[in-house]
Amino acid sequence: MKAEIIAVGTEILVGDIVNTNAQFLSRELFNLGIDMYYQTVAGDNPLRLAEAIRLAFGRADMVIFSGGLGPTEDDLTKETVAEYFGVPLLFHKEIQDEIKEYLKGYAKTGYPESNWKQAYIPEDALILHNKRGTAPGVILEKDGKIAVLLPGPPRELLPMFTEEVVPYLRAKSDFVMEAKVLRLFGIGEARVGEIVSDLMAGGNPTVAPYAKDNEVTLRIAAKGKTKAEAEQMIETVRQEIESRLGEFVYGYNEENMAKTTASLLMNRGLTIACAESCTAGLLTATLGDIPGVSAVLSESIVTYSNEAKMKYLGVQKETLEQFGAVSKETAWEMAEGIRNAANADIGVSITGIAGPDGGTPEKPVGLVYVGVSYCGNVIVKKLNLHGNRTKVRQGTVMHALNAVRECILKNER
Amino acid sequence: MKAEIIAVGTEILVGDIVNTNAQFLSRELFNLGIDMYYQTVAGDNPLRLAEAIRLAFGRADMVIFSGGLGPTEDDLTKETVAEYFGVPLLFHKEIQDEIKEYLKGYAKTGYPESNWKQAYIPEDALILHNKRGTAPGVILEKDGKIAVLLPGPPRELLPMFTEEVVPYLRAKSDFVMEAKVLRLFGIGEARVGEIVSDLMAGGNPTVAPYAKDNEVTLRIAAKGKTKAEAEQMIETVRQEIESRLGEFVYGYNEENMAKTTASLLMNRGLTIACAESCTAGLLTATLGDIPGVSAVLSESIVTYSNEAKMKYLGVQKETLEQFGAVSKETAWEMAEGIRNAANADIGVSITGIAGPDGGTPEKPVGLVYVGVSYCGNVIVKKLNLHGNRTKVRQGTVMHALNAVRECILKNER
Repeated sequence: MKAEIIAVGTEILVGDIVNTNAQFLSRELFNLGIDMYYQTVAGDNPLRLAEAIRLAFGRADMVIFSGGLGPTEDDLTKETVAEYFGVPLLFHKEIQDEIKEYLKGYAKTGYPESNWKQAYIPEDALILHNKRGTAPGVILEKDGKIAVLLPGPPRELLPMFTEEVVPYLRAKSDFVMEAKVLRLFGIGEARVGEIVSDLMAGGNPTVAPYAKDNEVTLRIAAKGKTKAEAEQMIETVRQEIESRLGEFVYGYNEENMAKTTASLLMNRGLTIACAESCTAGLLTATLGDIPGVSAVLSESIVTYSNEAKMKYLGVQKETLEQFGAVSKETAWEMAEGIRNAANADIGVSITGIAGPDGGTPEKPVGLVYVGVSYCGNVIVKKLNLHGNRTKVRQGTVMHALNAVRECILKNER
Repeated sequence: MKAEIIAVGTEILVGDIVNTNAQFLSRELFNLGIDMYYQTVAGDNPLRLAEAIRLAFGRADMVIFSGGLGPTEDDLTKETVAEYFGVPLLFHKEIQDEIKEYLKGYAKTGYPESNWKQAYIPEDALILHNKRGTAPGVILEKDGKIAVLLPGPPRELLPMFTEEVVPYLRAKSDFVMEAKVLRLFGIGEARVGEIVSDLMAGGNPTVAPYAKDNEVTLRIAAKGKTKAEAEQMIETVRQEIESRLGEFVYGYNEENMAKTTASLLMNRGLTIACAESCTAGLLTATLGDIPGVSAVLSESIVTYSNEAKMKYLGVQKETLEQFGAVSKETAWEMAEGIRNAANADIGVSITGIAGPDGGTPEKPVGLVYVGVSYCGNVIVKKLNLHGNRTKVRQGTVMHALNAVRECILKNER
């Protein structure tokens, strides 16, 4: 099947929002084994939208629309697509009731009448119920062409696609696409590409590396007659990849570094505390984004100043004077100090130069020390990171999370 | 002038990257007063790209291309556009020298020959020199049609557009577009829209509200014969808007809440320290992203546990027992406690329930107290925030930064 995406909305054409829906839909369609050759953005103008629809259906079997299903006059996707298909819009009482339920806060003062526009659905269309907003989605099939209409807000579009459109498309297909993402840390995309280049040459499964901030992902996608067959094909390639690159693989799919490390801590009941200088709380805040982490993280301290490093962490004045705040020795004492102060199993320390100022020839911007105190040992890693202040701080957090992960696993071997 | 954007790259069609270039270019073209009705994404396929080019030039005077200027076989934008315009590609020795200079690391071992492809430029084209990569940009004008070819990586495309394409387009235009963004906090998009609806009806300047995470922006854009004229038109509207909504306006253009509050602190030399529970360092980390902030921020403490709140901040056991950790009283003592512990001018506290678990009917997920201790006073704000854990934490940080900002300004009145 060939598909296209049309995003509808003047707010995209004037640059007010990034079209992240297109990326989500592209990846999902790719995973389903559906080809896509073009994507289009059109504004809230019925004539120009109609022209985009005509072009897209001239090239593709299915067009997925995002946006233009709202209650206002300029939301015209449903009307324009119905006209292209030559079908009328019919009022659905049950959709009106769903919208009323969603807008029940208005029950006393009167509902916004404009929302009833959203209860009109093209004749014979499949209705995609919206639990997170008032705009229902629509799937319309006619003469071998399929139109899928989805609401624009990502928090409505993403679950509607995953929960309702994916099963619909899987049922239409005579094969199954499965994919698995390997997440690698500590190696670059080019090197990964060299090591698995023979696997990247194959057509099924496909293997594709991709560089993200501070990590590399390797996506394995396979097409099979059954889910089990596709999964077995992926598993074979995964094992081959990990025999070559296993030391760098830290997680799979959506298990990013923060989730991976937090899960290790929570599953083992290991408590952690952080002493952060140049990251100023970003490591703790990153762990703090994971639900339930407060069971193992009860305190952390941001110590930008030398005084704070001495006061809270017991870093020696002599250490700071002799080696400086950004040094292996200071990182060592900070890691020990925070573990003791918090009475935690693991103490992590970060001290470095995030820039843009503060660098010297001996200690340039991007020099960071990360310390981990665990089970009577302290290890300190020296990092030389590149990029601006934000990049240095984010990179440091990834390295610190990974250092904690490695310490826990090494201790179990 | 009517323009379109064509992004070239299979990596966009399969969802590996988000097309952020399109947003940047859309906004820039909008600011230049150039209309855009369509955007397209095409893959690295010469026939389909040629078809997209034909369609785009059938509708627009100018097409801006991003991507497909790399050194590999599948980078075909330049070749395909030159063919559409019917002009040959000519080798430029000076471009080859620039590429050699950029790749000087290869001087000893031999340059990658594939890069010389990048030294071929369509005949009679304007060359946009690339200081951040090997792919030069190109502007090609013929028979009233303009093609602008830019490299795909944003760190190359953005400065090349700003430094070379904007002056080129401004010189072609007989008017000047200027824009100013007002940033508002503490009011919703719909309410802003109602209050300035009469101003939104005007054609020049245009006024458009837009809801972002936790804030609303109002963009004023004006078209004038001179920059001064456009700026004066904007200024008149800005004054009118601020006479209605001034209490909510906290900043302009790129001055987001973190920058605004950090600047207030740094300009006045006011020191700050934070005691964070449910945000787990995110407030401090957000301030920490601003260069130079360590001059006024020397320490902060994350206190998830009651023990930590007592140990570091001197919160009374009785307060925690009587009112709970998430209470006005605890927030009050935390703010006082961190200001004293850090000997800072301003102490900020955050305690709340970020979810997804931990909520009760009396204290639901999203209930957060923010305290600010300054100049002998403590104020505590009670928040009821919506959304998931990440949203609650981010919203809390915005409210805390705004509370600090308001305290500083109020004290100066």
